[in-house]
Amino acid sequence: MTMPVYFDCDTGIDDALALAYLVAQRHADLRGVGTVSGNVDAAQAARNTLDLLAVLGRDDVPVAVGEHDFLTHPYDGGAPHVHGANGIGGARLEPAGRPVDGRSAAQLLVDLAHEHPGTLRVVAVGPLTNLARALQLEPRLPELISSVTVMGGAALVPGNVSPVAEANIANDPEAAQAVVSAGWPVTLVPLDVTMAHVLEHEHLQRLEDAEQEAPRLLASMLGHYFEFYRDIFGRACSAMHDPLAVAVALGTAVADAAPRVPVVVDTGDGPGRGQTICDLRGRYRGLADHPEATCRVVLGIRSDFAEDLTRALTAPAPAAAAGVSA
Amino acid sequence: MTMPVYFDCDTGIDDALALAYLVAQRHADLRGVGTVSGNVDAAQAARNTLDLLAVLGRDDVPVAVGEHDFLTHPYDGGAPHVHGANGIGGARLEPAGRPVDGRSAAQLLVDLAHEHPGTLRVVAVGPLTNLARALQLEPRLPELISSVTVMGGAALVPGNVSPVAEANIANDPEAAQAVVSAGWPVTLVPLDVTMAHVLEHEHLQRLEDAEQEAPRLLASMLGHYFEFYRDIFGRACSAMHDPLAVAVALGTAVADAAPRVPVVVDTGDGPGRGQTICDLRGRYRGLADHPEATCRVVLGIRSDFAEDLTRALTAPAPAAAAGVSA
Repeated sequence: MTMPVYFDCDTGIDDALALAYLVAQRHADLRGVGTVSGNVDAAQAARNTLDLLAVLGRDDVPVAVGEHDFLTHPYDGGAPHVHGANGIGGARLEPAGRPVDGRSAAQLLVDLAHEHPGTLRVVAVGPLTNLARALQLEPRLPELISSVTVMGGAALVPGNVSPVAEANIANDPEAAQAVVSAGWPVTLVPLDVTMAHVLEHEHLQRLEDAEQEAPRLLASMLGHYFEFYRDIFGRACSAMHDPLAVAVALGTAVADAAPRVPVVVDTGDGPGRGQTICDLRGRYRGLADHPEATCRVVLGIRSDFAEDLTRALTAPAPAAAAGVSA
Repeated sequence: MTMPVYFDCDTGIDDALALAYLVAQRHADLRGVGTVSGNVDAAQAARNTLDLLAVLGRDDVPVAVGEHDFLTHPYDGGAPHVHGANGIGGARLEPAGRPVDGRSAAQLLVDLAHEHPGTLRVVAVGPLTNLARALQLEPRLPELISSVTVMGGAALVPGNVSPVAEANIANDPEAAQAVVSAGWPVTLVPLDVTMAHVLEHEHLQRLEDAEQEAPRLLASMLGHYFEFYRDIFGRACSAMHDPLAVAVALGTAVADAAPRVPVVVDTGDGPGRGQTICDLRGRYRGLADHPEATCRVVLGIRSDFAEDLTRALTAPAPAAAAGVSA
């Protein structure tokens, strides 16, 4: 049994790695990608995604352009200092030569939910604007999907765009609040774990030395990202935010702490704007699940994810196999 | 050389322990106590403080009643579920038989700062209303004092009255924001460390078995507190919030991590109200001090504080000695 997946992204260097990792998982069946403004604008993210899918042998996957602006405020130009001006560290990909899907990303998600009732896994690694729009389009969406996994937030560690806020959530706090309060099963993969699973120089070297084109291409993007993280970690390396969310969604990374707790997003205009406020007050007696909560917050990952990711990206020709099964 | 100290409190069971610990330190010279509403109202806190000082042999210390209400909202009845209706776990103390000081707590603090220019240590273990009032009374106060140590806030751990807010700060966020932004050297002793230094049953037993009256009296208060913490920790024990702040202020507890970082208090009306937002984004490369920050945030204590506290409270007759030196 393969798992049908909708992937929502703002491609983005780590989005690109996440997409390649997702395509490499034989038990996952990528049915569609929606893009959103975040690291780059939604249109550029769609171009990057189409071009990368071509390299990965997955021209069959529809790519829909999603929201350019956030729910209550305009897109502000993204994060070129992190991801480069084109979002993929200046790497030049062959243009895919096929168009984007005519639907909005939100409509594509709704359509896929109806095509795969009860089984679609939603993985969102950018701002949550498309998911919020999809909830507006189809109020029954929470009953139709299997799970929502979000790279975003910071629970018991500092944020990355403010002392308490992480970029995906901070870009569109109103959308994030709509998503965490929609009653569907949400799993947050926050900075607590994504900053703890870091790609080091030795992993990068293995991508560079790979026989296939895709890992060498991803390695060429990572130079920019590694340099950005030099200021954060004190050495050139990189957090693997988005790939880890994919791995959690597909069960290839196993959480050793992921309590189900009340989560609310700060949508005010104060210094806490964009914070994912997770009620972890139960931690001193072992963090039991709250009976009525619908969000899990991943606080620990058992496996060596940087190793798993590197192996998956350099494994022989998984993309073609996945393409056949799709 | 003794250190002149002004102690601001809302006595309170752990305030009572903090006061006894402070009086037991021979290098500290307690010059005055101000009370504020928090665990109980300011007037009850003053009665508790006067009565406890009598037991400790320190009837020489002026006790001033401070603010009943917070800067922008009224006192709401305190925390009888934590500290008991009288604030000291139902313990009955002999009435001290002397009146409170005629001044407000804020005025007492200002007067002491002028009497001990540059050397007064301010230790605040309740809401920061009196300190904010004192800053209004005497704008030069930051230049006159040596240091301000505050039990309050939560940096990288959950709050205790909301998912992100600690009680002292949450009671009067506006006052806390005035204190952390006043430019004087503030040391925050947050839940990050106070929840990690816990009095256990064996410590309680040693207080109960002491020869002196004071530790036995403190033990009689602690029954109530231990029961409250059973729900938090899954066993009867108690966090030592306020005593630890005194120990940090006096140098008897040594921090092994206390970066100087920007701190701002969330004074909005959203879910983050009362949070101490500490900019700890530098943690991945070692948390260097920020050049312009004036607040230290204590994140780790090297010593076994529960042991140190128990020893200090059961040591032979330190109170009388301190009384003579005062």
